[in-house]
Amino acid sequence: MNNRILQMLEQQSEGYVSGEMLSQELQISRTAVWKHIKKLESEGYLIEASRRLGYKLIGRPSKLTLPELTQQLQQKGAQLVQSVKLFDSIDSTQNIAQRLAEDGAPEGTLVIAEQQTSGRGRMGRKWVSPSGKGIYMSYILRPGIPLQFAPQLTLLTAVALCRALRSVAAPLDIGIKWPNDLLIGGKKISGILLESTAEDERLRYVVTGIGISVNLTREDYPPELHDIATSLAIELGRTLDRAEIIASFFAQFQQLYAVYLKEGFAPIKMLWEALSVSLHKPRKLLVAGGEITATPVSLNDQGALMVQSEDGTIIPIFSAEQMLQQG
Amino acid sequence: MNNRILQMLEQQSEGYVSGEMLSQELQISRTAVWKHIKKLESEGYLIEASRRLGYKLIGRPSKLTLPELTQQLQQKGAQLVQSVKLFDSIDSTQNIAQRLAEDGAPEGTLVIAEQQTSGRGRMGRKWVSPSGKGIYMSYILRPGIPLQFAPQLTLLTAVALCRALRSVAAPLDIGIKWPNDLLIGGKKISGILLESTAEDERLRYVVTGIGISVNLTREDYPPELHDIATSLAIELGRTLDRAEIIASFFAQFQQLYAVYLKEGFAPIKMLWEALSVSLHKPRKLLVAGGEITATPVSLNDQGALMVQSEDGTIIPIFSAEQMLQQG
Repeated sequence: MNNRILQMLEQQSEGYVSGEMLSQELQISRTAVWKHIKKLESEGYLIEASRRLGYKLIGRPSKLTLPELTQQLQQKGAQLVQSVKLFDSIDSTQNIAQRLAEDGAPEGTLVIAEQQTSGRGRMGRKWVSPSGKGIYMSYILRPGIPLQFAPQLTLLTAVALCRALRSVAAPLDIGIKWPNDLLIGGKKISGILLESTAEDERLRYVVTGIGISVNLTREDYPPELHDIATSLAIELGRTLDRAEIIASFFAQFQQLYAVYLKEGFAPIKMLWEALSVSLHKPRKLLVAGGEITATPVSLNDQGALMVQSEDGTIIPIFSAEQMLQQG
Repeated sequence: MNNRILQMLEQQSEGYVSGEMLSQELQISRTAVWKHIKKLESEGYLIEASRRLGYKLIGRPSKLTLPELTQQLQQKGAQLVQSVKLFDSIDSTQNIAQRLAEDGAPEGTLVIAEQQTSGRGRMGRKWVSPSGKGIYMSYILRPGIPLQFAPQLTLLTAVALCRALRSVAAPLDIGIKWPNDLLIGGKKISGILLESTAEDERLRYVVTGIGISVNLTREDYPPELHDIATSLAIELGRTLDRAEIIASFFAQFQQLYAVYLKEGFAPIKMLWEALSVSLHKPRKLLVAGGEITATPVSLNDQGALMVQSEDGTIIPIFSAEQMLQQG
């Protein structure tokens, strides 16, 4: 009901919607309309009420809200997400989602937090999650693919996120650094973490954590990170709507996931290579024999990065930790 | 101390060891010797005590004991196993080992139970675990290999177990059915379950569960299983020493694991193919297009089973569930 009232207020964006019309349209009493309006206000919506003219939406909350998210997800056709759990502040969306997955929660279950107190990234590193400025979320997949192909999912997720952000934050030139970091001008704006649980060759579930620096300001970054990390708002010069970004991501992901399950990795591989900033630039890498300099040239069918050394041989790189810092 | 007393009694297998000698050799009082003997008796050892002659070991317990296990592991050089947790009865060794692994327990931590109330195999199937007659154990690995190669570990584990059992239960002809069931005359004698937890392409830990039907009798099997499953004791005509089997397995596993980490999958692949009963016999398989009849011919480098269909094309099979029942 709150969703429908919100829709009707938004459609009438320049003027008022009368209480009488809301009451008739939704077949509820005027008092019930007023109660729902109060509920929306408590969620952070700014609604002006005029006895004569009715209700007018004058401000959206800066907080994520379930009605807003659900509406955006519906509008963008992201049916993959059937269950959303939204928290003000928790330790880590990955922890919550892992527990839900172990207890049998279905594919598409999504956990989002305004703030994380123990957000985590790769290799146990902390993912700093200031309240209200970023997207910190985890979702559950139950992909019927063998374990060996989980790295392909990592790459698919990066493609989905890159396409969603390039669309919502156009005209920013966002690219993928192998395997799944998104960069603008060499600075990182998001992280993706896939935690897989398998039984023999069968993936039982995959919990994907995504952190996106949406509306962080320059002041949110310590000086040592200024050349390494940035946010969409810093680069675009304006704040962005987080619910829109989340819904765009899931719409893209759902589409690419369906293609992947039907046709395999080849189409995803082409999209990844087109969006990659890692290819064709020589760099230092760590392999079994030590350090080498080699040029990434493509992905292989399993999702490993194929690199060509100075003598022409091509070998696979499996882990982001093999990419050594330049300079 | 119990271990040393046990060793000295065993060395004197035909006769008695005097209390005086034990006391002097171990530098403890006669009373302390007597207390240790009582402790060994409470663990199930049968020890005859003669005032004049001393102590004589006349029977080993049918229960697994920590001193026995530790001694066997030491004797067989299985240093991989540094921590053993032995239970009379628990829900599942996999559950315990998973919790320990998540809490940071090191590689080689081993959990064994005399009996499991909720033993599990593949696909959530129950692993029936009658008290004292089988081996039900789980151990933790932290392999520094990418996720894609976890299926190779499954095959390595099967090779290690097959070699250990062929040695301890000689001359039984034990072979491997792809990927990791051990069979005697077409009947299953063991199950192996690898549960992997990964972060992106990095395996965080692998918990391997092994169930071996050691001393089950014909009466332990319902009639519908008589053609499908058997035990080492049924096939050999005598009971076997479970501690010896466990230690033999870890000695084999440790050796093969070291070879694998150093030289890759090729040597393991050769051993697996030599022990396999799956190769070169046509069978029905389930692939994306439906049912086909094809002949397994080899493993590929990732550990998938390569099968050749009637028209000569060779394709990989990733999952044991693709092998359909014959007849």
